[in-house]
Order: sequence, then structure tokens, then C-alpha cells
Amino acid sequence: MSRRVRWHRADIRDRNALAAALAEERPDAVFHLAAQSLAAASFDRPEETIETNVMGTVALLEACHAAAAGAVVLFAGSSEVYGTVDPAELPLKESAPLRPHSPYAASKVAAEAIALQYARTGWQRVVATRSFNHTGPGQSPAFAVPSFAKQIAGAASGEGARVLKVGNLSAQRDFTDVRDVVEAYRQLVARGASGRVYNVCSGRAVSMRQIVDDLLKIAGVDLAIEEDATKLRPVDAPIIYGDASAVQRDTSWQPQIPLVRTLTDVYRWFARM
Amino acid sequence: MSRRVRWHRADIRDRNALAAALAEERPDAVFHLAAQSLAAASFDRPEETIETNVMGTVALLEACHAAAAGAVVLFAGSSEVYGTVDPAELPLKESAPLRPHSPYAASKVAAEAIALQYARTGWQRVVATRSFNHTGPGQSPAFAVPSFAKQIAGAASGEGARVLKVGNLSAQRDFTDVRDVVEAYRQLVARGASGRVYNVCSGRAVSMRQIVDDLLKIAGVDLAIEEDATKLRPVDAPIIYGDASAVQRDTSWQPQIPLVRTLTDVYRWFARM
Repeated sequence: MSRRVRWHRADIRDRNALAAALAEERPDAVFHLAAQSLAAASFDRPEETIETNVMGTVALLEACHAAAAGAVVLFAGSSEVYGTVDPAELPLKESAPLRPHSPYAASKVAAEAIALQYARTGWQRVVATRSFNHTGPGQSPAFAVPSFAKQIAGAASGEGARVLKVGNLSAQRDFTDVRDVVEAYRQLVARGASGRVYNVCSGRAVSMRQIVDDLLKIAGVDLAIEEDATKLRPVDAPIIYGDASAVQRDTSWQPQIPLVRTLTDVYRWFARM
Repeated sequence: MSRRVRWHRADIRDRNALAAALAEERPDAVFHLAAQSLAAASFDRPEETIETNVMGTVALLEACHAAAAGAVVLFAGSSEVYGTVDPAELPLKESAPLRPHSPYAASKVAAEAIALQYARTGWQRVVATRSFNHTGPGQSPAFAVPSFAKQIAGAASGEGARVLKVGNLSAQRDFTDVRDVVEAYRQLVARGASGRVYNVCSGRAVSMRQIVDDLLKIAGVDLAIEEDATKLRPVDAPIIYGDASAVQRDTSWQPQIPLVRTLTDVYRWFARM
């Protein structure tokens, strides 16, 4: 793999700018991760979220059709599409019903349906994912795990507050290291079936409380925990985890990085800053 | 019911114009049928179709949220969302998999998901339909049945060609009279469950060839039949029909108008012109 990276900056809704970049680079694969990706923020900005995530996907598909017709497009979707999950449906297979509960989740249902239609119609090879929670060093503190890690690192350095503000800690979610998720995307572009959607997940649920406890242990500090109403969602499924058998069947992917290493690396990312 | 109708003209993507009209009328119900609704045309105009049908739905929902928060919105969707149907899945229930095959169908999957999310989030009462084929007097000849009727009426008058141009006549579809469909929408707004989607259909399939034969018999003419490649779709399911038990359970709706009367009325619409 070449380490050479060239950057092109464009609005994901700007089909012509995307086509120009694609025509210059002539890629074999396009990893489409451009989105308004904060579910919580989408409640305040539904139109912007849907326009960016849906019309942005259409613009990219049209640009590929025009300038990179041979490329495989990986559409990075989200486990949020499953919405409020009935525990009887666990582990979630790709055939589970979609009941999106946020504009973000609805936008991902919409964009996934359109992306897969392009594949079904024979316009573009497209492999879609429903990626469950993932984190790692570099993720924005607008997401839960880096938010915890940043607050804890601040307290450990003596500069931050001695209180950790959190959302719903009883929620249990299926976490994978972002570096494993990237490897899944790489393998799916090479060996995934065009026109199909794959869960990308660990297959296990961990509570947000456990993640907080692990981070505090990694940092060697003890903090008061305070629930922040702004971090709570109107509707929140108690437990969500996925079935990764489709991606494991079609590729050789298995997540490699244990959660405690992920949390250690996220913590160090902020402790180093 | 008042017979008074006031018209407001606006682009469905223009949230402010929609909100102004809604603020003036203060409706209890909004029937959302604005769309680029020709599946065949959507292959040539995917972006326009998706923008109109998806962002138009978002604009209308946002306008309702702002100016008609108490109104029930009926989202008129399409059986096209089911896509290429496996005969083993017939009759199609609402839980059947969605495999849209046209940009139009993908746009309806997308808009339906977003509309139902608005209901699920508690932002607006929304009842969605997946309406199967329907026709009646007044439908544009861009659709199959009026196209047949118009050509046959032209030939019967001695002015039109003696050749009937058709698409795939072996396709079997589930047809309901548009006046029955309107009655279903009226009943669903009153008694449908917010956040759910209902098939609106007859539960029976009829071949397009049968429809042509019936129209020729109604007209009392005999024409040569010629397949027109521009009327064929890239992918076309051989047979599609729906299960209407959900709408029948939640309302007292049953289709009343037999197909032969529908076809007679469509034929007369053009014969009178």
C-alpha cells in the first residue's frame, strides 16, 4: 500500500467538485464517510443532517458514476438505523427491522437505501455497512468515550474539574476499535458483495458505566459522576449489539484490539495533549 | 365535509412557502402526495427525483412542525419500495424486505423512513402508505393504463394510430381505483396509527395484458400491439400483489370499485376529450 496521500477539499454535496477530484485520482475504491455524524446534534438540525447525509451521498454516487464508474464505493452506515431495539431481536442481524429514532438515523436509512439501489441498478458497485459504536485515539470529544477520556485526563492533570459529566451510563453498546473498523472497510471493499449491507461490530455489549470505570482505572483517578441532561437522548435503547456473521463469512475480518487497549489509547491521546 | 377548496401554489422543497400556506389554513390533516412520481423517468433524473421526494418531504414535515404541529400527515408512499419481489414473499406484508430498484423507489424508502422518524420522535403525527398501482380518470398518460386508454380512444375515433405501443404486458400488478385509494387515505388519517406504514392495495394481481384486452373490449376496437423499448424497465418483477390486512384491521376500508369500471372510466375520460 502506498503511503502517499493527496488531499482534496470539497463539500460532499458538490457533485462537480467531487467528480473533478475523482477524475484526477481515478480511484479503485471510494470510502464514503462524509456525514453530519452526531445523532444528538441531528435533533436540532434535521434538515442539515438529512441534506448532508442523503443528498451528499447522491452527489458522490453521481460523481462516481460520471468519473469513477469502475470504483467500489463503501458506504459507511450506522447501527443507529435499527433504532429502539427489542431485546428479543438481539444480536441484530442485517434483516432486523429499521426503526430510526433520530434524524441522523433516518438519514442513514435513506442514504443506505439509495446507495444500494445504485448497486442493484448496476450503476456502481456499492458495499454498505451498519457500523456499531467505534472509538479510538483522534475521535472528537463530541462523542461519549473521548468526552469521558478528555474530562478524566483534565482532572488527572489537576487542571480540569473533579466532576465527570456523563449521559445515560446504563446503556449497553457494541464497541469496536476504529482501527479494526477501518480494516473491516478495507476488506469489504475487496471482498464484500456489491448491493449488500454488513454489520460491523464486535458482537458483544458493554455498559457505558463499565467504560467510565475502566477509564478511571486507566487514569488512576476517582471522580464524582454527574448526569448531564443535554447528553441524554429522547429515546434510548437499553442494550444493542450486532451479529457480525455476514462480514466474517464474506471476509476474513475479526476485530483484533481489546476494548481496554482502545480505552487506554483514547485516554493517552488526551493525557498527552 | 366542506366542499370549499382554496389553492396555494408552492414548491414542495420550499419550507417557508409551505409554512405560510399551513399557517393560513391551519389544517387537521395534510395529504402529502407531492413527488416526482414516474419510476421510469427517475432513471434519467435520479438527483432531481431524490431531492424532490426526500428533501420535499423534509421541508413539508418541518413546515408542519412549525405551523401545523397538530395535523396528521399522510405520507403517500409506493409499493415500488419492495423492488424485485420473490414470488415466495407474496402477498407482500409491510414487513417484507425493501429492495428498491429505481431512484424513485429508493426515494420513497428514504422519505418514508424520515417521515416515520418524525412520528417516532414525537414531532408530528404521521401515517405512511405503500400504495400499490392505482389508476382512474384524470391520470396522466405518462402512466401505463391512461397511455393505453388514450391510444385506444385515438384509434377508435379514427384519428390515432392503429398500433398500440406498450411496455412489459406479462407483468402482473395489484390495481386499485384511485377513488378507493383516496378513501383509504381519508380513513387512515382518521384511524391509522401514527408511526406506522400501511399497504394500500386490492390483494390481487392482474396482468397488464388483461388490462389491454379489457380496454380494447370496452372500446370495441382491435389494434396491433407493439412493444416499445422505452417503456421497459431495466429490472421488472414478474408479479407483485400486496396484503391489505393492516389497513383493513385499523380502518373499515375495502376497495369498492371493480377494475372493469375503473378501466371504463379511464377510457371514457379520453374518448370524451
